[in-house]
Amino acid sequence: MELLTRENPVFAAYALYSTLLAFKMFVVTFLTAKQRFKKQIFASPEDAKMNNKAKVKHDDPDIERVRRAHLNDLENIPIFWIVGLLYVLTQPQAIIAVNLFRVFFVARAMHTFVYAVVVMPQPARALSWFAGVGVTIYMALQVILHFA
Amino acid sequence: MELLTRENPVFAAYALYSTLLAFKMFVVTFLTAKQRFKKQIFASPEDAKMNNKAKVKHDDPDIERVRRAHLNDLENIPIFWIVGLLYVLTQPQAIIAVNLFRVFFVARAMHTFVYAVVVMPQPARALSWFAGVGVTIYMALQVILHFA
Amino acid sequence: MELLTRENPVFAAYALYSTLLAFKMFVVTFLTAKQRFKKQIFASPEDAKMNNKAKVKHDDPDIERVRRAHLNDLENIPIFWIVGLLYVLTQPQAIIAVNLFRVFFVARAMHTFVYAVVVMPQPARALSWFAGVGVTIYMALQVILHFA
Repeated sequence: MELLTRENPVFAAYALYSTLLAFKMFVVTFLTAKQRFKKQIFASPEDAKMNNKAKVKHDDPDIERVRRAHLNDLENIPIFWIVGLLYVLTQPQAIIAVNLFRVFFVARAMHTFVYAVVVMPQPARALSWFAGVGVTIYMALQVILHFA
Repeated sequence: MELLTRENPVFAAYALYSTLLAFKMFVVTFLTAKQRFKKQIFASPEDAKMNNKAKVKHDDPDIERVRRAHLNDLENIPIFWIVGLLYVLTQPQAIIAVNLFRVFFVARAMHTFVYAVVVMPQPARALSWFAGVGVTIYMALQVILHFA
Repeated sequence: MELLTRENPVFAAYALYSTLLAFKMFVVTFLTAKQRFKKQIFASPEDAKMNNKAKVKHDDPDIERVRRAHLNDLENIPIFWIVGLLYVLTQPQAIIAVNLFRVFFVARAMHTFVYAVVVMPQPARALSWFAGVGVTIYMALQVILHFA
């Protein structure tokens, strides 16, 4: 079984994009930290103690926006990791699978961008979210057809 | 090694129920969206701009309830995905493993139902939560016994 | 392919620490429940109905602190699960890989301890968080070098 090696282009692409998604999530963590330090607004008193001007606050709209982007990642990306891995094991055609992984990655990167970097009017965020969910649901149906 | 193929009934059941759990999580996303559009209450100003009557609000009890159900999914289902996969690799008896996956899936579906669809008095939600955690802890102990 | 068996010390360590991290996350769930019952403060009306003195409240600082620790787990531990699994498949040297998994586990256990058990001044939490992220980023880079 060579399915889980770099000799399988589908698995190599899955491994690459899954890991790039992890980096993308760390970028959101960094954006939250950047907003917190810029505004000197923290969630815990021990963080605010690092600086005289800092305060504890939980409703700053710019920070909450980044946190919502992060939560949306948690709601979507781990599902991609597991469903994508199972999809690799259905032995799909490489050209379809690799492009699905690419679309998912680009969709999630755009979702973060229009939600938390440069805020864009809807339906920008809705479309990027749907593109990711569409890829996931397609892969999930293939997994069920293969294994059920 | 044929462990990760559909010829292994344990892995086939794992793949099926893991994917059904992903669909179950998308149902919760849909329930949140349904509540938001029904009540015209959104989390971001760019969403509320889609409709004159819409407003931004973060404490609507019906919406927050669905979001708590979703967060509880995030706290429990990814743990099932990884611990379940490792458990498959311990080569458990098929009849036990397949039924554990089924119980976990049904428990999480009931958890969502009594939390966010038809609200039921406790201990309905507590019991469905414990059933899922019980399955996970049993599998986790088997994984540690096998690999440690 | 014997990579995903207990004969591979790297995978055996991955399976062990991944599962211990699942238990660590359940400890945080238990800490939340303990705080809620001690203070008789719950998130849903059907929970508060179990006791006359109980009430619904969403801003108790001790409960919110444990919930932030839990959310931080969700932001970091599933990333470890997937990136760690892919890292195992790059066939790293056992002595390096096993120690990375250990450092990640200890870092996350300390993160929970200084955040939600005995609150410690910064940079205690920041350092434990960075140790975990450092391990993850190192593994992620190895995965990309191997599979890209």
